[in-house]
Amino acid sequence: MTVFRIEPVPRELAAALQQKIDTRTKPPGSLGRLEALALQAGLVQQTLSPVLNAPHLFVFAGDHGAARAGVSPYPQDVTWQMVHNFLAGGAAINVFAGLAGMQVTVVDAGVNHDFGDCAGLVSAKIAHGTENYLDGTPAMSAEQRRDALAVAASLVDKAARDGCNVVAFGEMGIGNTSSAALITHLLAPAALADCVGRGAGLDDAGLVRKLALLTGALEAYRGARDPMAVLAQFGGFEVAMMVGGMLAAAERRMLILVDGFIATAAALVAIREVPAVRDYCVFGHRSREAGHRVQLAALDAEPLLDLELRLGEGTGAALAYPLLRAAVAFLNDMASFESAGVSDRDG
Amino acid sequence: MTVFRIEPVPRELAAALQQKIDTRTKPPGSLGRLEALALQAGLVQQTLSPVLNAPHLFVFAGDHGAARAGVSPYPQDVTWQMVHNFLAGGAAINVFAGLAGMQVTVVDAGVNHDFGDCAGLVSAKIAHGTENYLDGTPAMSAEQRRDALAVAASLVDKAARDGCNVVAFGEMGIGNTSSAALITHLLAPAALADCVGRGAGLDDAGLVRKLALLTGALEAYRGARDPMAVLAQFGGFEVAMMVGGMLAAAERRMLILVDGFIATAAALVAIREVPAVRDYCVFGHRSREAGHRVQLAALDAEPLLDLELRLGEGTGAALAYPLLRAAVAFLNDMASFESAGVSDRDG
Repeated sequence: MTVFRIEPVPRELAAALQQKIDTRTKPPGSLGRLEALALQAGLVQQTLSPVLNAPHLFVFAGDHGAARAGVSPYPQDVTWQMVHNFLAGGAAINVFAGLAGMQVTVVDAGVNHDFGDCAGLVSAKIAHGTENYLDGTPAMSAEQRRDALAVAASLVDKAARDGCNVVAFGEMGIGNTSSAALITHLLAPAALADCVGRGAGLDDAGLVRKLALLTGALEAYRGARDPMAVLAQFGGFEVAMMVGGMLAAAERRMLILVDGFIATAAALVAIREVPAVRDYCVFGHRSREAGHRVQLAALDAEPLLDLELRLGEGTGAALAYPLLRAAVAFLNDMASFESAGVSDRDG
Repeated sequence: MTVFRIEPVPRELAAALQQKIDTRTKPPGSLGRLEALALQAGLVQQTLSPVLNAPHLFVFAGDHGAARAGVSPYPQDVTWQMVHNFLAGGAAINVFAGLAGMQVTVVDAGVNHDFGDCAGLVSAKIAHGTENYLDGTPAMSAEQRRDALAVAASLVDKAARDGCNVVAFGEMGIGNTSSAALITHLLAPAALADCVGRGAGLDDAGLVRKLALLTGALEAYRGARDPMAVLAQFGGFEVAMMVGGMLAAAERRMLILVDGFIATAAALVAIREVPAVRDYCVFGHRSREAGHRVQLAALDAEPLLDLELRLGEGTGAALAYPLLRAAVAFLNDMASFESAGVSDRDG
């Protein structure tokens, strides 16, 4: 597979950054989690004055062989229909990324549909959907996994060359909460029942059926349990591309805004493969999907937002971006006690 | 006092708004709290297509006679010094309001300092700080309270005439968490110990001393317990102006973004005085100050953000504004299943 050279974020600047944070005109600590975020941004960029440039959100779309077995209340056609909606600017992610000033790139990672010549779509289809892992077949081959990682890495590299230093990843793929649940179960690790949720809106009977199908998929699998093996067995192409995008972003020392349940499953694969990826991640939103709590606990992550969203597409990341921007801005733009002539405490 | 004609928000449009929310291209309910926010904005503005115009944040600054007794670790001079910092654009609220696109107006509500001719400052000084309520003296007279309410109402009226339909209120005033704690104790109501916190950073001994001083202030008070009496006894001029601003905003059917502990104390006064004010309020941020939880429970309010801030100035409101904007934007700008040609569930 592609080798990513990812280094942990050096912490030598931490004391100087904390000093800068503490001398802004506010009581120490009073900006709460934004202070930790400013510190992280400064460390990732190795500067006392971090900047966010050309923020980019990639939406990867892919279909799942398993979806045809009924793990979702929505028909598989919704995946390609939503791709058209993304391209037309009519989806939630278009609205939120637009407000946040993030560029959106929509990628056909492996949708079960022929888009033909479709303006604005990055055609990187690995296949017309993954194989059906429910019967033990690997969702994708090692070559397909490699290609998916490489495609996403090259997209992130291109964005970086264009000046981008902060990326987010969204996805669309009917059935992909099942994929994320299996990945989470094996890599968190945690009990399968704690990782399986209602996805786009299963009722109780649907949830029971989903859990039974996924239990069967695990029983039929005899392969390895390392992150890349799990990704190939149960991943979607959109999940694999998110993994590749995160690895490439960490290699290039970019900040990574992680969305909800599917994106965090990808982060789990990337971080279990290369633990230093964690240093670059900012978690945007706590999804209502049950398994997200399991993932966040496994990664010791506390998202910035908790708005009870369960949509995906990168929406939680786009909604959190203004907070990252605020953290960087206070560090750069607030006056110090000295420069503003404001008395410090007990002064 | 000034009479405010405030009507509850009519709910006749709720079903049509919910229908519009549910037909956007996303699983029903999947935008979580943003959906409730979109519904509220539509109801307040009585339209299926709410818009946010000319958002305005007023920062009221005032001093407290009680502060001279040592309820804060910061000297009272910080109030006027921070006013200069607001005017120079160097405070956290300048940074966050700037990012959010909110206009900031800084008002001298009653700072214990002569600013002279100070560019950009709205001079509305009621007095050079309030009286010291710790010995039972009312912080302000009924006339001063009336004047403070009227000043803020006229500022909000002016903003509304200039096209503003969403307002936020911030404050600066060394010692004002003590004022807010007493108001909360009496109007939530709740045990005083649950309402008193560390403010800008008291240590354990300081917290014990603050609680003892405020207990004494309550023992020395023999007056009425209605919201306006409590405001005059224990309020700051900046708190009274926030109350007046909220009442005026509700009268004009504006959305009100409520900040943390001090702003919610003002909201508590306004809502206990006129319960319909609650319909117009959006709560921005859950403060780390202990008493904020008491206030939120009393008002059945759940803030949008929980970033462990405890700064005031309106920062929590400004940071939440992009979420309000996102809620309104998804309602207006997302495609419907029908217009986008996307299959609905079980389709």
